[in-house]
Amino acid sequence: MDYTYRQILKWGDKREEKVDPLMIKVIREKFDLKDSDFETKYLSGSQPVILEKPSSLKPHQLDFFKRLAGDENVQSDDFSRAKFSCGKFYAELLDMRLNLVPNPPDAVVSPKSFDELVKIVEYCNQEGIPLIPVGGQSSVTGALQAPQGGIALVLTKHLNKIERINTANKTVSVQAGISGPALEEELNRHGFTCGHFPQSFEYSTVGGWIAAKGAGQASTGYGKIEDMVVALKVVTPAGVIETKEYPRTAQGWDIFRLFIGSEGTLGIIVEATLNIHNYRPQNTSYASFIFKSFEQAVAGMQKIIQCEYGKPHLFRISDPDETDIAFKTKGFDNSFSDRLLKGLGFLPGKRSLMFVAVEGEKDFTKFVLNKIKRTARKGKAMYIGKSPVKKWIDQRYSSAYMRDPLMDMGIMSDTLETAVTWEKLLKVWYAAHTYVNKRPKTVLMIHISHVYESGANLYFTFLSPMEKGNEKNDFADFHKGLVDTIQENGGSLSHHHGVGRVLAPWMEAHLGRSSMAVLDAVKKHFDPNNIMNPGGTLGLK
Amino acid sequence: MDYTYRQILKWGDKREEKVDPLMIKVIREKFDLKDSDFETKYLSGSQPVILEKPSSLKPHQLDFFKRLAGDENVQSDDFSRAKFSCGKFYAELLDMRLNLVPNPPDAVVSPKSFDELVKIVEYCNQEGIPLIPVGGQSSVTGALQAPQGGIALVLTKHLNKIERINTANKTVSVQAGISGPALEEELNRHGFTCGHFPQSFEYSTVGGWIAAKGAGQASTGYGKIEDMVVALKVVTPAGVIETKEYPRTAQGWDIFRLFIGSEGTLGIIVEATLNIHNYRPQNTSYASFIFKSFEQAVAGMQKIIQCEYGKPHLFRISDPDETDIAFKTKGFDNSFSDRLLKGLGFLPGKRSLMFVAVEGEKDFTKFVLNKIKRTARKGKAMYIGKSPVKKWIDQRYSSAYMRDPLMDMGIMSDTLETAVTWEKLLKVWYAAHTYVNKRPKTVLMIHISHVYESGANLYFTFLSPMEKGNEKNDFADFHKGLVDTIQENGGSLSHHHGVGRVLAPWMEAHLGRSSMAVLDAVKKHFDPNNIMNPGGTLGLK
Repeated sequence: MDYTYRQILKWGDKREEKVDPLMIKVIREKFDLKDSDFETKYLSGSQPVILEKPSSLKPHQLDFFKRLAGDENVQSDDFSRAKFSCGKFYAELLDMRLNLVPNPPDAVVSPKSFDELVKIVEYCNQEGIPLIPVGGQSSVTGALQAPQGGIALVLTKHLNKIERINTANKTVSVQAGISGPALEEELNRHGFTCGHFPQSFEYSTVGGWIAAKGAGQASTGYGKIEDMVVALKVVTPAGVIETKEYPRTAQGWDIFRLFIGSEGTLGIIVEATLNIHNYRPQNTSYASFIFKSFEQAVAGMQKIIQCEYGKPHLFRISDPDETDIAFKTKGFDNSFSDRLLKGLGFLPGKRSLMFVAVEGEKDFTKFVLNKIKRTARKGKAMYIGKSPVKKWIDQRYSSAYMRDPLMDMGIMSDTLETAVTWEKLLKVWYAAHTYVNKRPKTVLMIHISHVYESGANLYFTFLSPMEKGNEKNDFADFHKGLVDTIQENGGSLSHHHGVGRVLAPWMEAHLGRSSMAVLDAVKKHFDPNNIMNPGGTLGLK
Repeated sequence: MDYTYRQILKWGDKREEKVDPLMIKVIREKFDLKDSDFETKYLSGSQPVILEKPSSLKPHQLDFFKRLAGDENVQSDDFSRAKFSCGKFYAELLDMRLNLVPNPPDAVVSPKSFDELVKIVEYCNQEGIPLIPVGGQSSVTGALQAPQGGIALVLTKHLNKIERINTANKTVSVQAGISGPALEEELNRHGFTCGHFPQSFEYSTVGGWIAAKGAGQASTGYGKIEDMVVALKVVTPAGVIETKEYPRTAQGWDIFRLFIGSEGTLGIIVEATLNIHNYRPQNTSYASFIFKSFEQAVAGMQKIIQCEYGKPHLFRISDPDETDIAFKTKGFDNSFSDRLLKGLGFLPGKRSLMFVAVEGEKDFTKFVLNKIKRTARKGKAMYIGKSPVKKWIDQRYSSAYMRDPLMDMGIMSDTLETAVTWEKLLKVWYAAHTYVNKRPKTVLMIHISHVYESGANLYFTFLSPMEKGNEKNDFADFHKGLVDTIQENGGSLSHHHGVGRVLAPWMEAHLGRSSMAVLDAVKKHFDPNNIMNPGGTLGLK
């Protein structure tokens, strides 16, 4: 059996294999596709993987890793090196389809224990071998590339255990390589949930959540990952940092917070203690609303989050473009109810969906949902039942898997996201649409999915036909313009995807020189020889 | 008029002038005092302030500050230097009474503007003059001492303005020298509250809250200060750090968090943007409960906070010793109700008070309070009405002012606090009582006042007759033993007082060498010449 690029660019998830017929219809319409566009897969990546760059590890170095971790835990073949050379950023997938592997590691090593991992860090530090910690490989920021080669250090194979569920403290201690589903399943069995469900949940790890500073779909209630971490154990070239489990402290600034968002540049997160929550899905209360405009939906959302009567856990608005696509792909477009909505003034191109789910104790979820319903109605929303949000939840991880079938059809798609205060939110939203509208046959869907009293996250998904023969530059230019637009209008560089190598060029302008110098200084302390995920991540060297 | 030590050791608050007769009765009884102990003030500190250490500033240096800030904003007389040489730590007050000023600054400077402040930092960095930022001087950790002399930099005189109340974002931007009451008053006028009410509130500043990583009495609902800060502007010897206002980000680790708990060692916090809340005191719901034991009260509190039905804002338990003193000083002891309680099995020496207040939208506060009542009753508590907690709130800042009249009677008193997980909480509580009980005629009152799903804060107040003639060493030994006891049993070094110079000796053992090295490295980056609050704070040089 050949090992092809195509095996790498796909998740291996069956949801990638076909696109829903209604979605096909929308795509055909939006992008003016012909039958022939569906006959062959564009840039299918079906060729066997062959790397140009040989592994630059010396034989004695490779031997070291094999002796330490065992032959079965060290790979240096082309396919393994290619597979661990990237995450799931659009440009990385495009490279695979173009048979390009620009930044492969020299080998892939899966340590069996904490002690082995410490020895690997010490050895790499002595030998000057780069180390790139790898979790679920769902990074969309180029954070897993190995431009200077080195070792892709895989934590998922062995360092993936739950160490303790502490029912008194409502915390769980895990090894960082554990996957979201494995953690959640075990917690559920004990009556708990982690409360952290990023879209990448099914192919993500706790270490990745922390390193990339992620947010889950229920973050409005449970917080982002930085609200969940109680203690960390991290192996750095400057030694092991292990913090203790306290509910809060005032013993100087919190050292463990340096690693939340560090993206592998300071050390390897090997253990984490997280807050957990009661698992009572039967208590969750759901509501879906429709507003006549995005502006009204945003005003309603702002009001709901600022009222101080308890917060929803899941809280989303889709802007008119996303709402229209949702109506079409769910077969709701032109249904009886749709015609009714139109008659009531909820018009395509204007109307915006809002989804709410409240978790917790039974009376509480009912209470908060009722308050939200009242506020939403005052804000001119129409309640449209539980079922739309429940349907959304049923397929909430799926849309990520659609990217590869879309690419097979010659369509580029990517997502960007930003955090912005209420004051500037509509400005960023409007500017992004204005920018994207300049490109022909391009769809931009925006939603708000993580909500705070002071502002929210805007999440951008764009789809556009590839410029055939110039796919890479075309994407890079378009992507750059969108990031610029968000930045110039007051959005943050990221709310939860992280920075990686993709957004790194914006870091200094964004943070300012004196703040970048702080990142450099901390990096220098933990990693004086620059072996930890070197070569651009976070705008570091 | 003479300027005496006594003027420094007191807050100047009229509540310091006399002690409540019921409290006198308790003190007389507990410490076996005679009438003569009340006749003269012990170590009254009524002598005029005369410093042994002359100011070590050179004339041209003093001139620089005077030219820059104006004569009226630069003081180098003995009284001013003594006044700004300390906070309100017991040992500092004792020094004043013994006419000792071990660590005075060389001068006191109050810059009029941000630009002046930047010039002062630049100049001091060039000249190697230490800078100690001063807020409300309510520090109880020795963080304001100037063991290497230098400038006490006062922000309260000029840099004390509200810059903007942002009603869209529910944030306020202020200069760091603003006092708690000034901020709160203006916010209230606009329908908001800061939600941060440390016991030192009346004599504290926003800069101090942040630098010392404080917590307010409503922190269970509103969070600690680190949950409130959205953005900071800080002047450091390495340049100005200014972060932008975003609800959340994932653009690397958060640089502004380094300054929360930095205690003046990295730079001077000059501006802060904080989340604010709706001010609707008429909505607040109150409840007081009594439990038959501290263990039952703790179990009830843990249950309430872990149920996920909304949290109280104020949430406290007094342990049996604190409960007994509260009964006595409120004149409740042996009242009809007290006898009733005893008859029902709520016995002195065992029973524990719980206070609850829920803030927010009206229905919400009622809803949450009802849930809490139900949980508390299931946990065998008896509801004893609103009035005890309301009375407590009326005098919630007062007990701090009692320390000086107690010292006048020859009684030492101090407070310590720690954060600890539920798992270890009773162990720390028990160990602290066991330690203190070894000292004759000593009272230890413990309460829990900041509550998290994973644990809580334990707050210790002790009172004991001074060992006359050996006051300093006696206190230091006793204090050290209590800190050791807390640490050894799993409590953090501090939950919200901070570390300062008093707890600094425990830092390395507590954090570990590799974590202390991180503090050192960050310090070195921001302050290579070690001018920012040098000489021991946080365990730094």
